[in-house]
Amino acid sequence: MSTLQVGIIGAGRIGRLHAASLMTRVPGATVRTLADPVLEGVREFADGLGIPRVTPDPAEILGDPAIDAVLICSPTPTHADLSMAAARAGKHIFCEKPVDLSIPKILETIRVVRDSGVRMQVGFNRRFDHNFARLRDLVRQGDLGDIHMVRITSRDPGPPPLPYIRQSGGLFLDMTIHDFDMAGFLAGSRVEEVSAFAAVLVDPAIGEAGDVDTAVIALRFANGALGVIENSRRAAYGYDQRAEVLGSRGAAASGNDTPSTVRVSTADGVLSDKPLYFFLERYMESFVEEMRQFVAAVRNGTEPPVTVEDALEPVRIAEAARLSRMERRVVRMEEIPGQAPG
Amino acid sequence: MSTLQVGIIGAGRIGRLHAASLMTRVPGATVRTLADPVLEGVREFADGLGIPRVTPDPAEILGDPAIDAVLICSPTPTHADLSMAAARAGKHIFCEKPVDLSIPKILETIRVVRDSGVRMQVGFNRRFDHNFARLRDLVRQGDLGDIHMVRITSRDPGPPPLPYIRQSGGLFLDMTIHDFDMAGFLAGSRVEEVSAFAAVLVDPAIGEAGDVDTAVIALRFANGALGVIENSRRAAYGYDQRAEVLGSRGAAASGNDTPSTVRVSTADGVLSDKPLYFFLERYMESFVEEMRQFVAAVRNGTEPPVTVEDALEPVRIAEAARLSRMERRVVRMEEIPGQAPG
Amino acid sequence: MSTLQVGIIGAGRIGRLHAASLMTRVPGATVRTLADPVLEGVREFADGLGIPRVTPDPAEILGDPAIDAVLICSPTPTHADLSMAAARAGKHIFCEKPVDLSIPKILETIRVVRDSGVRMQVGFNRRFDHNFARLRDLVRQGDLGDIHMVRITSRDPGPPPLPYIRQSGGLFLDMTIHDFDMAGFLAGSRVEEVSAFAAVLVDPAIGEAGDVDTAVIALRFANGALGVIENSRRAAYGYDQRAEVLGSRGAAASGNDTPSTVRVSTADGVLSDKPLYFFLERYMESFVEEMRQFVAAVRNGTEPPVTVEDALEPVRIAEAARLSRMERRVVRMEEIPGQAPG
Amino acid sequence: MSTLQVGIIGAGRIGRLHAASLMTRVPGATVRTLADPVLEGVREFADGLGIPRVTPDPAEILGDPAIDAVLICSPTPTHADLSMAAARAGKHIFCEKPVDLSIPKILETIRVVRDSGVRMQVGFNRRFDHNFARLRDLVRQGDLGDIHMVRITSRDPGPPPLPYIRQSGGLFLDMTIHDFDMAGFLAGSRVEEVSAFAAVLVDPAIGEAGDVDTAVIALRFANGALGVIENSRRAAYGYDQRAEVLGSRGAAASGNDTPSTVRVSTADGVLSDKPLYFFLERYMESFVEEMRQFVAAVRNGTEPPVTVEDALEPVRIAEAARLSRMERRVVRMEEIPGQAPG
Repeated sequence: MSTLQVGIIGAGRIGRLHAASLMTRVPGATVRTLADPVLEGVREFADGLGIPRVTPDPAEILGDPAIDAVLICSPTPTHADLSMAAARAGKHIFCEKPVDLSIPKILETIRVVRDSGVRMQVGFNRRFDHNFARLRDLVRQGDLGDIHMVRITSRDPGPPPLPYIRQSGGLFLDMTIHDFDMAGFLAGSRVEEVSAFAAVLVDPAIGEAGDVDTAVIALRFANGALGVIENSRRAAYGYDQRAEVLGSRGAAASGNDTPSTVRVSTADGVLSDKPLYFFLERYMESFVEEMRQFVAAVRNGTEPPVTVEDALEPVRIAEAARLSRMERRVVRMEEIPGQAPG
Repeated sequence: MSTLQVGIIGAGRIGRLHAASLMTRVPGATVRTLADPVLEGVREFADGLGIPRVTPDPAEILGDPAIDAVLICSPTPTHADLSMAAARAGKHIFCEKPVDLSIPKILETIRVVRDSGVRMQVGFNRRFDHNFARLRDLVRQGDLGDIHMVRITSRDPGPPPLPYIRQSGGLFLDMTIHDFDMAGFLAGSRVEEVSAFAAVLVDPAIGEAGDVDTAVIALRFANGALGVIENSRRAAYGYDQRAEVLGSRGAAASGNDTPSTVRVSTADGVLSDKPLYFFLERYMESFVEEMRQFVAAVRNGTEPPVTVEDALEPVRIAEAARLSRMERRVVRMEEIPGQAPG
Repeated sequence: MSTLQVGIIGAGRIGRLHAASLMTRVPGATVRTLADPVLEGVREFADGLGIPRVTPDPAEILGDPAIDAVLICSPTPTHADLSMAAARAGKHIFCEKPVDLSIPKILETIRVVRDSGVRMQVGFNRRFDHNFARLRDLVRQGDLGDIHMVRITSRDPGPPPLPYIRQSGGLFLDMTIHDFDMAGFLAGSRVEEVSAFAAVLVDPAIGEAGDVDTAVIALRFANGALGVIENSRRAAYGYDQRAEVLGSRGAAASGNDTPSTVRVSTADGVLSDKPLYFFLERYMESFVEEMRQFVAAVRNGTEPPVTVEDALEPVRIAEAARLSRMERRVVRMEEIPGQAPG
Repeated sequence: MSTLQVGIIGAGRIGRLHAASLMTRVPGATVRTLADPVLEGVREFADGLGIPRVTPDPAEILGDPAIDAVLICSPTPTHADLSMAAARAGKHIFCEKPVDLSIPKILETIRVVRDSGVRMQVGFNRRFDHNFARLRDLVRQGDLGDIHMVRITSRDPGPPPLPYIRQSGGLFLDMTIHDFDMAGFLAGSRVEEVSAFAAVLVDPAIGEAGDVDTAVIALRFANGALGVIENSRRAAYGYDQRAEVLGSRGAAASGNDTPSTVRVSTADGVLSDKPLYFFLERYMESFVEEMRQFVAAVRNGTEPPVTVEDALEPVRIAEAARLSRMERRVVRMEEIPGQAPG
């Protein structure tokens, strides 16, 4: 099959990362056009990778008959509209998470994408991480027996800037959304009930901005298993990304990745490396792998590994968590509107 | 100061363990009398350790003016009454946990013990464990900064027999009670809010007996920190007893103890030891250490490290967890009667 | 069978340790008499444990018909003579290592003990350590296949005082002797060739005293396997005692024991505990276990797990290492006189 | 500065690896020509990366005035001659290790390269590995104090094919050569004395081919430190690449890299991942990093981090190890001809 021609909308950090992956590490695809409203520096970046075209206008990508697939790496509020436009233009879609913060908008996107017949993958990259994918494989293969408990520890090295926080949709939609996706992925089951505790412990300014920075969220899955997600906006030692699954036959736990395996023993103790600090470093390979699988799915005409329907559920769980926290009670997922059309 | 003369009521597993500790590993104390309704085998056991007297009747201990302190190691329903009788007899008391399953009964015991002026320590032995004590020290010394989150993972190797479960008071009072104590101990703060999820996943017979075998319990502490306890009645790999504390300056986590440090690398992977399987093996040294500190407190006339007041709070939290589970909501500790008289 | 009556010669650190083990943790034996030329403090120590007699004169132990077995815990130069005297007196013997620094003297002791028919065990306690015993079991059970390589890392937290070093017989006889025993134990085979490098790196005063403080000793075993021992008189982080065995089916490695399993993650890194610093703490349980097995062997009339013949080989290897270092060549064990009479 | 134009001689596994690194992950350089006697598949490979030219004739690279630097990735016997030809053609050189198995030939190469004034780097990629580089940094920064001991454990997952072994120059020149380089690198000092033990334990056919498959090599460095290298041609659990440095202030040890951090706890034990099995996977990033530093050195006109002089010493140590093994004695490096001209 001929090489997949890709257009990328948004040449920020994540757009560039995907561009570099596609040009250097993902066989079977090439980037034909890179679109960004601010072209400064984009031309040089594109040249360095051998990407032939840059444009300030996404429409140039959507209207280019030579382009097979579009990567949507622009700001969140544009995701849904661009996805629908791409679907209507007959382009396959890879869209960064979240597709939208509004459930009706996601539902609309799902409908439009379904009607168009294009393939759409959503950027829940952590599913492609070597550690989490291994946990998932163990669950899927039955090595752990029936699943009883899933725990996710997810702590950022430090909070994002306040302006970002103010328009982020809040901790649950901005940070925990990855963990909500991971919870269902690891449990191999949908979430049915949510109970959330949250607090402002890291920075009072986050509370003043109407958000929280620390949370414990208990879950119950359709298969009966329980789950818990722990979040903090600040872990002084770096980016803490771990998970553990307990089943009837045993447990599997993933630890953090580190820059080296070196351990230094002195009179002060035995010192080993902190976790990788930066999410791009920690999850670099997962970004490449999700792109490989997207390209493969499009080229083979198969279902992508993370669909637009998968993007809906974490947003609904985030809403349930918000409601649980406000009303200080267990929330059942039926209470949250917008189940994906069957 | 002269050697502390101790009487032990109850010569079951835990009574014998304490007897052996006192006779061989705890300086400053000796066991004068061992009481148990069934004397079979007790005489031989006492002889082996050089304990001079055995009796079927606890009253012989309580009435013996030579005895300074009493260890109450009989079945749970007798704990409170024997404690009160011992207090009235002017004996210092070490009582196994729980003092009672009923909050009013514990309150009554607190009053009687206070009025009597004797010292009373309760058997929350895990506080004396090398791993948990180290976590507590780190918290107390401020090495972790302000405390943001406490996590306790507590899984038994397998469920107890059904008859035991039926009269245990349920998972929260029987198993989680240790974790409730540990949560406050590690956080350095009282629990204020509780939200509990529970399920029957290990054995349906446990559900038929009216109990649960798996739980996730979220906590909020008075100092603002959040907490979570994970329980399971069955971990196929053994007795899983870990904790982690996250603070503003970092996190500290304890792992499991193992029979050896050996790692075996073969074509199948790298295999290391399972956790110690049996709680007596896992916590052996903590039982000795709590006895050392009890003997020291009594001899020095100082406050024991775990008081009868400390025994109340975990029972109240267990009640809050029960209520939370039933009513599917957050329960505040004020709702639970029986705060310890100030 | 009736309780084994034991006499202990030498009430220093190790004599007292064995006395306490026998009185409190080893069933089937009791200490009847403790002998030490300096009785100061010994009476109090004996009273505390319930040991009935103390004496300045070892002859009182050797001549006491009620005594079945003798522990020789006096200074090294007295070991062989006291062992022979005990054998002639018909007492079973547990002798601390080394039996002697002179090969002929050990051979003489072997002959006398053999002729007497008593049982004799030598104090290579590390064979009873949980980690090393586990390695040995893996080798013995064939889990590692044919043995290809044995590595022993043995580092003290700091050098002993110079006066001790001057009369110690040197690093190989004083410190490496344990590792020479362990090497054969783990390999399941005799040493056949030795090549030793040594240096003075820790403290020049050790060199001035005619000794070395750092060594790498290569070994070849009769079964073809190779071995290497690394020694240092000073590891700033504590007492470092590890071993690794490589076989055709895999490798097994033991690590150090630590005071706790706690790991502290901060901005500075992830800090875990140093190894236990002091050899009595590190090897405490091995001392108890060797005593249990000695008592069992004597009571059952079976071969002790470490015989007087086992005491000879490490001394011969130390001599080979000395010769190798001096002559800068490989030394074959045949060159060293004094193979144990078959 | 303009982009470095590179020609690669040899399009085997390692040549292709470097080609891919240069084209996709190393800024500032591009591959202009790829030469290999067998062009089958090479054209497709070059096209995929955007390398404009392929040729069966290295002379086309050496004679191309547009080419600044040459990578020599052809079979070992051609390394020295091609390096000298490249030097004479005024091309900077990156040459895979070993430059040659003959000391005089390496000396000749050193002379020719020096006279030509070009830069030459040799492919000791392990120096650029994240774990070993971290150890080296700790040594260089003085964090470990004075260096007392260096240990290198280097085990292959399985032996190479016999035809390869027959012409490899033997274990010391083929496999240990990397470890000899690493030993000096980590100790921060030259090797002065060598004592080698070797054996045939993995496969008798290796012995019949005149080689060994298992070795323990003791070293003494100019700074007084001792060292030991352990080699095996077969570790059933994978590619085992570890090192440890002991200094006066502490020790630092590197472990193996693994595919994931997941630990699976079941009734059978706690299973973690084996080391990465394949050297290209294990050392992938080090190959990229050495290329980055080579390109930087050439572009900046600075000394490359591994010079052709560095290539000489490991070959001399291998010769000393061979002699030590044959003559069963310590060999001093002065005995080995061919010290690099000062």
